[in-house]
Amino acid sequence: MKYIGIDIGGMSVKAGVVTEDGAILAKKTCETNANAEDTIIVRDIADLIDGLLEESGVSKDEIVGVGIGSPGSVYDEKGVIRYSCNINFKNTPITKLLAEYTGIKNVKVSNDANCAALGETMFGAGKGAKNTVMLTLGTGVGTGIVVDGKLLTGNRSAGAEGGHITINLGGATCGCGKKGHLEAYASATALMNQIQDACRKHPESLLAQRVAKEGVSGKIVFDCKEQGDKVAESVVKRYLKYLGIGLVNYANIFYPEVLILGGGISNQGDNIVKPLQRYVSRNVYGAEYNPKIKVACATLKNDAGIVGAACLVM
Amino acid sequence: MKYIGIDIGGMSVKAGVVTEDGAILAKKTCETNANAEDTIIVRDIADLIDGLLEESGVSKDEIVGVGIGSPGSVYDEKGVIRYSCNINFKNTPITKLLAEYTGIKNVKVSNDANCAALGETMFGAGKGAKNTVMLTLGTGVGTGIVVDGKLLTGNRSAGAEGGHITINLGGATCGCGKKGHLEAYASATALMNQIQDACRKHPESLLAQRVAKEGVSGKIVFDCKEQGDKVAESVVKRYLKYLGIGLVNYANIFYPEVLILGGGISNQGDNIVKPLQRYVSRNVYGAEYNPKIKVACATLKNDAGIVGAACLVM
Repeated sequence: MKYIGIDIGGMSVKAGVVTEDGAILAKKTCETNANAEDTIIVRDIADLIDGLLEESGVSKDEIVGVGIGSPGSVYDEKGVIRYSCNINFKNTPITKLLAEYTGIKNVKVSNDANCAALGETMFGAGKGAKNTVMLTLGTGVGTGIVVDGKLLTGNRSAGAEGGHITINLGGATCGCGKKGHLEAYASATALMNQIQDACRKHPESLLAQRVAKEGVSGKIVFDCKEQGDKVAESVVKRYLKYLGIGLVNYANIFYPEVLILGGGISNQGDNIVKPLQRYVSRNVYGAEYNPKIKVACATLKNDAGIVGAACLVM
Repeated sequence: MKYIGIDIGGMSVKAGVVTEDGAILAKKTCETNANAEDTIIVRDIADLIDGLLEESGVSKDEIVGVGIGSPGSVYDEKGVIRYSCNINFKNTPITKLLAEYTGIKNVKVSNDANCAALGETMFGAGKGAKNTVMLTLGTGVGTGIVVDGKLLTGNRSAGAEGGHITINLGGATCGCGKKGHLEAYASATALMNQIQDACRKHPESLLAQRVAKEGVSGKIVFDCKEQGDKVAESVVKRYLKYLGIGLVNYANIFYPEVLILGGGISNQGDNIVKPLQRYVSRNVYGAEYNPKIKVACATLKNDAGIVGAACLVM
């Protein structure tokens, strides 16, 4: 059995042939014609699939289905992408169109954060678990939630907007304009802001000196902490506390087997997993009676989008 | 088809014969022998069921199953009550025992807040909905969550402890000892504290005068607000904001069709529903693209425990 996973991004569309073990047999990429008519974008994806199958020598008959991961607001059950900030989708019936263009009947779509969570649960950091919550730390905080092996999407797929839960009444302003949301404290963007604040307050610190030379990044603050810079240490400590609070909130609601972290910061591995594991074990409700919740970084990395999308049709 | 619902409380156990429409045909109650051996408590429940069937003239053969709602930590899948603060359950295999004592094979158990949410979803404020979140406002904040018609309980039923999500970093101390939890702001107990604080600060207010005479209650603050007392008005406004933040957090994660409020404060009906409906509609993420989420008070009231428990076996 083989599956196709499509990972739509603002710059490029990636397609891959995925096995039932989550391995990628072949990959192919095309540019995203982001401002074109939506039907043209979908035709490009159909052409990409044809090229991929031709190059990999896999016949269309072997393909069980096509799964699509897209940024933006997706109505999973209807197979429609409602809108996407950077791509010209507008109530685009993408599963219907792609089925028509490719002749492959079984096509499904979901939000990219959902696909990543499903992929990690089936083949990555959450392998073997039935209940997981994944926070993807990027410009915002994306959440993908798997309950009993199935994606939680809410009524009309409008749920799992879990970056927008209030963790600090009247606190920092979120990208959405509201105050105190998790995203305003725990996204990669928030970490950059926290680093820059610290640099302004402590221009003498190693952190400030390196940021001035190399520019701000998540990696730099972990590096400086490693080198003994106290300012960097305090930024990391505070950021991990925010992230820990978000994880514990989700743990208390879902009590999943695994809490998964995605996004660039997850490359820090044990630097973030160890303190967060301690924080979660200490703060989750009823921890003394219940099994430990594992904290882990995403493992599928660059292939997460393709594999996760393919999981939609497995 | 008939079902039995058992509502275990610290003082009494209520049993009822429930129809498939959620109507109660007959009820019977016995005292909870809270400090006795757990097997004795379960035997009492078996006797209660026998008495109930005899009095109501319903034969055991007509009963599809027995559902049990219990306070405390319940491991639904195993049919075990792990512990309960006020009743002597300790890893009690209640479904196995009750099946043995009654001869009725199909017995299920869940936490009482879960049962209430399931009952309201099938026959009460959430009737017709597939996704609901219910907050029960009492000593704490209980959460019952229904996803796609099924209770969300988390790994080993340890989830849905949703009163313990942080909404205010480092804020008010919760009953569990941690800081800033929803429960410390939105439970009935929290409202009492907020009223008493206001009374201390404004002894001249109508609210303070009535509380001094009649004692503190949730009803009194709504009554005083109705009579034009500004202090009461500000307490209510602030409390509803806290509650609103909790509701919006759940709305952003689950995007349910209905958010349901239970507990004594839900008797305030439109006094709380109207402002909370406005707050939720204004603050939920993506409200402009998505269907409106209804806010409603629980409707099953005193029978919620029995009907909700019976829903476990429907």
